[in-house]
Amino acid sequence: MARNEERRAALADAGLRVLAREGARGLTHRAVDAEAGAPRGTASNYFTSREALVDGLVARIGERLTPDPAVHARLASRAPSRELFADYLRDIVQRLLADRDVTLALLELRLEAARRPSVAESLGGWMRAGFAGDVAFNEGAGLPGGRTEIALFHYAVDGLILDRLTVSIDPAISIDDVIDELVDRLLPR
Amino acid sequence: MARNEERRAALADAGLRVLAREGARGLTHRAVDAEAGAPRGTASNYFTSREALVDGLVARIGERLTPDPAVHARLASRAPSRELFADYLRDIVQRLLADRDVTLALLELRLEAARRPSVAESLGGWMRAGFAGDVAFNEGAGLPGGRTEIALFHYAVDGLILDRLTVSIDPAISIDDVIDELVDRLLPR
Repeated sequence: MARNEERRAALADAGLRVLAREGARGLTHRAVDAEAGAPRGTASNYFTSREALVDGLVARIGERLTPDPAVHARLASRAPSRELFADYLRDIVQRLLADRDVTLALLELRLEAARRPSVAESLGGWMRAGFAGDVAFNEGAGLPGGRTEIALFHYAVDGLILDRLTVSIDPAISIDDVIDELVDRLLPR
Repeated sequence: MARNEERRAALADAGLRVLAREGARGLTHRAVDAEAGAPRGTASNYFTSREALVDGLVARIGERLTPDPAVHARLASRAPSRELFADYLRDIVQRLLADRDVTLALLELRLEAARRPSVAESLGGWMRAGFAGDVAFNEGAGLPGGRTEIALFHYAVDGLILDRLTVSIDPAISIDDVIDELVDRLLPR
């Protein structure tokens, strides 16, 4: 990464920590500078408005949630099956739960989107592109399930993640079991 | 309602509007007083700490999401079936989507619970009691599905609500269709 890109990524990471820790209302250029240990004005140089800052955070969330190429190469080498679909899903859920700051920041931005049209626009574009990408990936890989199923999995996984990162109705329910039950029931036979 | 209870409910409603509009960080006794149009110090009289205020908001969320007795009497008069389960579920989703402030406030409190153990305790007790109540209600009413299914529906409905109140992967997908698909696939045959 070029030095400028590294700095931009470090500032965005600081912004995601601020969001996760303080919520959307705490997200200011000044708070990002402080969190990054950067001189005041640095975040404003990279992200010239709050809208640009949010756009930068959304882009960084996408980078940080990108699958591990080694994990995906192993998955891609297998023949398509319900079990393979379950393993892809397991990888998604693990990434979301492992990177707690990123996932909480994403949830904070979703709630902020309910209040600010500019955030809804930025996040909405990214989320809808992601959904279309998931549907296309699933089809291209010959995996079971189409647009309807992928939407149902999106809802269920978002709810599961919210349950595990915030307040759980029952933390003793195993995540692997939930994934197996969802795949067993939601995918067409 | 006694006058004191009315005042307490009006203050809690003001608190829920503050949460929905400004997020958890904006929730202070002072903001609640201002939103309720009450003299400064009023919210502190009714809720003597931030913990007590959060407890009061959680209790008020429970009251505002209570089913309409007339709607539930009609549902309770029918013989148990998958269709009846679907109609109960439809009623839950409608209540959550209709009372936007309450549902957004609840989501804000869930995220706040990820940061503050006292909020996690208050909200967690209420949510786990609600989950246990849902499982017991379903069994008592002779409806299909047990603890596992009710958990899967909780996750899916939370994700659907998040999708519709914040940023949607596809707002054209009909909520009724999602409920029908979930009931069709998640309930045991």
